[in-house]
Amino acid sequence: MPLRGVPLGFLSSRKESEALDVTRSLATYIVGSRWEDIPSPVRAEAVRSLLNWMGCAIGGVEHEASRYSRELALAFSGPPQATIVGTPFRADIFRAAWVNGISSHVFDFDDTHLRTVIHPSPPIAPVLLALCEYQKVSGQEFLHAFVLGVEVACRIGNAVCPAHYNVGWHSTATTGVFGAAAAAGKLLGLNGTQMCWALGLAGTQSSGLRENLNTMGKFLHPGHAAQDGMTAAFLAKKGFTASERILEAPRGFAHVLSAERNLDELTDDLGKRFEILINTYKPYPCGVVLHPGIDACLQLMQEQHVTAEDIVKVELDVNFLVLEVTGKRHPKIGVDGKFSIFHCIAVAFIDGRVEEDQFSDARVLDAQVVALSDKVSARVDPGIPAASMRMTVTLRDGRTLVKHVENALGSLKRPLTDAELDEKFRRLCAPHLAQGHVEELIEVCRSLPQQSDASRFAKAAAVRQSQET
Amino acid sequence: MPLRGVPLGFLSSRKESEALDVTRSLATYIVGSRWEDIPSPVRAEAVRSLLNWMGCAIGGVEHEASRYSRELALAFSGPPQATIVGTPFRADIFRAAWVNGISSHVFDFDDTHLRTVIHPSPPIAPVLLALCEYQKVSGQEFLHAFVLGVEVACRIGNAVCPAHYNVGWHSTATTGVFGAAAAAGKLLGLNGTQMCWALGLAGTQSSGLRENLNTMGKFLHPGHAAQDGMTAAFLAKKGFTASERILEAPRGFAHVLSAERNLDELTDDLGKRFEILINTYKPYPCGVVLHPGIDACLQLMQEQHVTAEDIVKVELDVNFLVLEVTGKRHPKIGVDGKFSIFHCIAVAFIDGRVEEDQFSDARVLDAQVVALSDKVSARVDPGIPAASMRMTVTLRDGRTLVKHVENALGSLKRPLTDAELDEKFRRLCAPHLAQGHVEELIEVCRSLPQQSDASRFAKAAAVRQSQET
Repeated sequence: MPLRGVPLGFLSSRKESEALDVTRSLATYIVGSRWEDIPSPVRAEAVRSLLNWMGCAIGGVEHEASRYSRELALAFSGPPQATIVGTPFRADIFRAAWVNGISSHVFDFDDTHLRTVIHPSPPIAPVLLALCEYQKVSGQEFLHAFVLGVEVACRIGNAVCPAHYNVGWHSTATTGVFGAAAAAGKLLGLNGTQMCWALGLAGTQSSGLRENLNTMGKFLHPGHAAQDGMTAAFLAKKGFTASERILEAPRGFAHVLSAERNLDELTDDLGKRFEILINTYKPYPCGVVLHPGIDACLQLMQEQHVTAEDIVKVELDVNFLVLEVTGKRHPKIGVDGKFSIFHCIAVAFIDGRVEEDQFSDARVLDAQVVALSDKVSARVDPGIPAASMRMTVTLRDGRTLVKHVENALGSLKRPLTDAELDEKFRRLCAPHLAQGHVEELIEVCRSLPQQSDASRFAKAAAVRQSQET
Repeated sequence: MPLRGVPLGFLSSRKESEALDVTRSLATYIVGSRWEDIPSPVRAEAVRSLLNWMGCAIGGVEHEASRYSRELALAFSGPPQATIVGTPFRADIFRAAWVNGISSHVFDFDDTHLRTVIHPSPPIAPVLLALCEYQKVSGQEFLHAFVLGVEVACRIGNAVCPAHYNVGWHSTATTGVFGAAAAAGKLLGLNGTQMCWALGLAGTQSSGLRENLNTMGKFLHPGHAAQDGMTAAFLAKKGFTASERILEAPRGFAHVLSAERNLDELTDDLGKRFEILINTYKPYPCGVVLHPGIDACLQLMQEQHVTAEDIVKVELDVNFLVLEVTGKRHPKIGVDGKFSIFHCIAVAFIDGRVEEDQFSDARVLDAQVVALSDKVSARVDPGIPAASMRMTVTLRDGRTLVKHVENALGSLKRPLTDAELDEKFRRLCAPHLAQGHVEELIEVCRSLPQQSDASRFAKAAAVRQSQET
């Protein structure tokens, strides 16, 4: 009696699920889940995630990484089955998913499952977008498979993070391939054993090193995960076998790729708690952990009329992840600026906004920006959560201003509204699609639950060469 | 003075190379290496490895894993650029490399770098075979790129094995993707920085879990590595950036995927010592570590006329890898029999040979085979190297025979001769190619150093529909 509910209970339950076949449990859940089982708020969040994802994928099409991968894909593509979003081009479903996965990640503007820092959509959404042009898929089937894919990826992330991420794995990719396999497998109608194989084949292709985070290599990750996850599902459907215990086996994913794990995370409250409900969307195209710092700048400028010229120094008290992920002191190329709290604070004060322009190569090397960034310092405060930051600014006139942002814009407690998401979407698509086209795409996405044919979403994301600017 | 040459020197040199950019050193070597720098025995071994690989790839074409992957590849393939060996089909170079990588591994009959238990050819040879039909490649360029690819994969294996393998990574795949990228990059003419990126993109796609070893998942590994390595090289050529320190960085391959590492292995005697010289070829299509046991059976049958009926019990003293890799007591499906020392000893005594027939589902479940396998026991003897085994057989007539095989047939000290390799090749190809065609393919492979156009090798591996049986 005295032991009930204390850690012993926790330990024994953990042992239990290590002994059980959690891969099988997860597979059984995916296969058996029905659209009716998905609560309304979950459905709504899926639509928001997909809209945010599509905006990023279209916005990123002219990035070099997108261009290079698109050129490669088109040169070797099979039948033109699926849309490469934000372009007039089509490729076979695997190549299209690969390219769309890459372009949706190049701005670091995609969604974030804050608990694990996983970006759930980029490896999963492209698979579904491709498949809905390959076979008949309703809007509900599309959203349902997406919810399940996100669930699988994020739960695997919960089970192994932070140890898995900390050692050097880019969890967006390593867990995304499972999510992609699950989502594809759901649409392909795999049975329970085939779904186990699909997860087994996904796990054996799981990869992605954080060493590449400040290079284009990072952008390859979700495309690679999407393509491999889809391959896993197609092979499993044919009868291509794999381990049926890839997650829990002693030489399976959780043991080999992580020093610590809690496998209960894979199945606890499965079908009751949905990870997509804690998905978030960035207002700024850079490392999410530094967003409260940008908020602090913009608020101080608006409320106290602080200008860049006034500033003597900026001191930040931050969550450890800020220096871990965005601690780059002197970025040399634009993309590195996205992972430099120092650069972001400086451009926020100087430009009054943080959009894609603030991360050009020229901007990170600009003398004024560099000079101000050198006045910024940051120290870790263990009491500060990831969505928060405290900024102390010392001004020329001797004043000291303190701004404590408790919940960054875009964080779970202060999410982007639907209108703000639409606005972000419009800004991302504007350079690539005509205005009416953008509005049509928003409408198709928002009405996915009512669409009998989800391929309308994919087709609406294609550039119609005669019409666009 | 008294410290010269003692471990301190070793430690300091190791530290030095961790600090240095070993990825860059390796890339510089690959880019700068000339055919003239490759010694004759190395060239000759490359030919032998390729012949052995091609035999395995053709022999395996009707395996389910080959068939499923081929169907998938053909359904989504781009332009028919490259031969799918042992078939009349062609696919785009990425899909062809993927399928050929898979079919060359399905019999577990491929080459082995015994020091690491890496199978070097399956992820690398398919890339070159595809590329030589895509651009002009001479026989020497083909062999040269192959030697370099094998060098890269095996050296990376040396740097992280056995810790990397022991924890659960299938090193054939995890290192093969680097070898594939290096080989493809050499043919694509990458410069030093591009070669670093290619390795960086390879490393971020490196995967393959031993949890899948007794499933078709294993066979996917070399195909996946081939495809991804080739992708890495093509992307790098376009300017797709990646970490230039993927091997040695704190969050790079060697640190994240292995608890222990010796980075000196990557560069010591580079260009002087060649890993392909310690490549070996199996006489039996099953786990290489149990081969000395099969030898012992066949020798006892020939020398002492032992028959299966005579046997009361068989006791084996073995290297630890035998039970680690081939310790499966009661295989239920054919492929599992390849990793069961017990099954292999039993069928060797009963059938007097160990070929593909001995690994059918029916054979591993056969009552006589199972009964004899239950009479076999094995214990680890730390004094016994991987190429050796001691067998003690107790017979019905009371006799006890001991057979100590010091070097298994096919091991480094007792390699298959060219004639034995040709014979193995003929046996593997016979079900798929007409006899004259097989001899032509042997001739083309053996004359690769003199071929001005290596694509003859690829084209000769295609089934000509009208001519073949």
